[in-house]
Amino acid sequence: MRKIEAVDFFYLSMPEVTTEGDGSQDALLVRVAAGGLVGWGECEASPLVSIAAFVCPMSHGACRPVGASVLGQRLESPEDIYRIASQIELDSMDLLQAPHTWSGVEIALWDLLGKDRQQPVWRLLGYRESFRKLPYASQLFGETPAQTYERAAAARQQNFRAVKFGWGPIGRGDLKTDVEHFSAAREGLGKDSLLMVDVGQIFGDDAEGAAARLPMLEKIGAVWLEEPFHTSALDAYASLSRKGNLKLAGGEGAHNFYMAQHLIDYGRVGYIQVDCGRIGGIGPAKRVADYAASRAVTFVNHTFTSHLALSASLQPYAGMRSDEICEYPFAPKPLARELTSNHLERDSQGYVAVPESPGLGIDINIEAARRYLVDVEIKVKRNVLFTSSDQM
Amino acid sequence: MRKIEAVDFFYLSMPEVTTEGDGSQDALLVRVAAGGLVGWGECEASPLVSIAAFVCPMSHGACRPVGASVLGQRLESPEDIYRIASQIELDSMDLLQAPHTWSGVEIALWDLLGKDRQQPVWRLLGYRESFRKLPYASQLFGETPAQTYERAAAARQQNFRAVKFGWGPIGRGDLKTDVEHFSAAREGLGKDSLLMVDVGQIFGDDAEGAAARLPMLEKIGAVWLEEPFHTSALDAYASLSRKGNLKLAGGEGAHNFYMAQHLIDYGRVGYIQVDCGRIGGIGPAKRVADYAASRAVTFVNHTFTSHLALSASLQPYAGMRSDEICEYPFAPKPLARELTSNHLERDSQGYVAVPESPGLGIDINIEAARRYLVDVEIKVKRNVLFTSSDQM
Repeated sequence: MRKIEAVDFFYLSMPEVTTEGDGSQDALLVRVAAGGLVGWGECEASPLVSIAAFVCPMSHGACRPVGASVLGQRLESPEDIYRIASQIELDSMDLLQAPHTWSGVEIALWDLLGKDRQQPVWRLLGYRESFRKLPYASQLFGETPAQTYERAAAARQQNFRAVKFGWGPIGRGDLKTDVEHFSAAREGLGKDSLLMVDVGQIFGDDAEGAAARLPMLEKIGAVWLEEPFHTSALDAYASLSRKGNLKLAGGEGAHNFYMAQHLIDYGRVGYIQVDCGRIGGIGPAKRVADYAASRAVTFVNHTFTSHLALSASLQPYAGMRSDEICEYPFAPKPLARELTSNHLERDSQGYVAVPESPGLGIDINIEAARRYLVDVEIKVKRNVLFTSSDQM
Repeated sequence: MRKIEAVDFFYLSMPEVTTEGDGSQDALLVRVAAGGLVGWGECEASPLVSIAAFVCPMSHGACRPVGASVLGQRLESPEDIYRIASQIELDSMDLLQAPHTWSGVEIALWDLLGKDRQQPVWRLLGYRESFRKLPYASQLFGETPAQTYERAAAARQQNFRAVKFGWGPIGRGDLKTDVEHFSAAREGLGKDSLLMVDVGQIFGDDAEGAAARLPMLEKIGAVWLEEPFHTSALDAYASLSRKGNLKLAGGEGAHNFYMAQHLIDYGRVGYIQVDCGRIGGIGPAKRVADYAASRAVTFVNHTFTSHLALSASLQPYAGMRSDEICEYPFAPKPLARELTSNHLERDSQGYVAVPESPGLGIDINIEAARRYLVDVEIKVKRNVLFTSSDQM
């Protein structure tokens, strides 16, 4: 019987991390070893805290470290992954960070199972074929409308047929400035590209504030308005969805299946965006993809880091032909680019194929990763619970 | 202008922590210092991980450590607390553990403000008077029905007029065993006591499994069935609420206002239970209490640790006469009992009064706390980000 023998975390970071909304500035890489095989995964956000949630001392029976439910467990089929996930839901119920930590481990378990069976993960999920996706270049608004225009023009130059602008100054100043940014984005892209807008929860639960931006977003033909509100502000989502014709998108903050389900049912989003590195991995993301299909809502991945995370995020909807759009980090930091030896490059028509090779189909560039490794040590009662290793 | 000068965390633990569902086995005590004053608070669950979320390196602009939004901030009025909370919502959006960390800090800020103004916190929240609460003894089911009977008889002996049994074997074996436990609890208590039942999310989202327990729970006159499901399994809550007359209770897992709101609106609970040490502190808990009142839902505190946490958890609904029941740790571990020098003891009629003294009205027993202090050190890039101190 194959058992999970080791789970190793590698906290990687750019030498300098800034306050810009760019999630590729650090990464938490996860390696799982079982029965002579190795699988790789990635957790989204706050490496130190996610590591702590794997190794922390137990607080009580419903607040155990994630590691307690993973190490030594049987790993022979997808059912084993689902079983471990259920156990964590109960045994780490009161450990809020647990889903983020588990996400990266879960992804690595799928990668490992795929390598064992010599099949891509999407086949293990039950898909018979995969469909290529249309990547949108995901980037931030400029500081000024002129800079936004330049970024749009650059994306067009690189033949992206879809571009998303996010965060930056939107919602932080006056309406007029926002309108100028929206307009500059469309001008820079030209009229034929798909254009999405992401405002990073800036309106909290203020549906009126967000609604003021709708006319201009409709005028520039935006495909969606993403994350106007806090992930859990379902009533604000529902209210805004009734104020215009623009579809809303959200869900990257969902840390379980239910949160995504409620954005669909109660928040009335038209696009549900799932980050496999947060929602608990590929399993719950697939469940969201199935649910979205049953509700005529479009599934989209959320990914702003490496191509390992990108491949993981495509698996849950690889076999869904009509969910065609995918997020594609346009200008990630060198760390995110160098972390993998191979990349999901666009084909001549601008599409990206989900890998056919076993597991996630992504190789880790160990030498490159080692250059970004952050030294971490966590001691409790003078015992070392975690120390970073460059034994990759 | 008064500024937040220091925030110190003290990780306390019993020498041995077991897998029983008893949250009083450890504690994360928080001390805030500002302008010569000191306030105390407590975070619920996983001290190491909550500490890490305060000191971790920034991952990007929306994943900053909680400490970055707290240290150096102005603290002169409740509005300052709300402002810091909003900033954390945006700047630590992608740091899942942040609400748990912030909760303990927020409670300490209210304590400090109350001491400054020489008023109990409930007055700062706008209440003119406070109403005493009827505590229910909160304890675990026994291993066997006979043990459950004994525990019920013991609580009756100590004149508790309301008792809650939780967790233990319920939902893990067959229906017959559960029914025997329910029946033993009622027999041990006698017919006049209020009896609540808490099953600790054991049914996941299986409404049928939970529904099988309803007839017996109705027969023994249970006041509520608590946490049959995952905190976010709103549809299962709604479905079960329609299957019988028994009111459902839940909400302790809510880590923001919205989650509690949705349990009321979509999950149709009759009792909304809020843990101030998780939901983001006293401010959002008060918002839930107001919302519950507008929906004819009863607010109840969730508390299983010290009397510092107990006092904090009573403030949000201190002034609501009709929300009379309160959770009261019946047999906490010595750590939780010894942590405070004074306690909220029951009066001759079995009621508990919310303190009238400034802040939370609870004094920390520093010598006792020091005996339970756990030594922690977190280093990143060879810099010590956190080291525990016994300078209490």
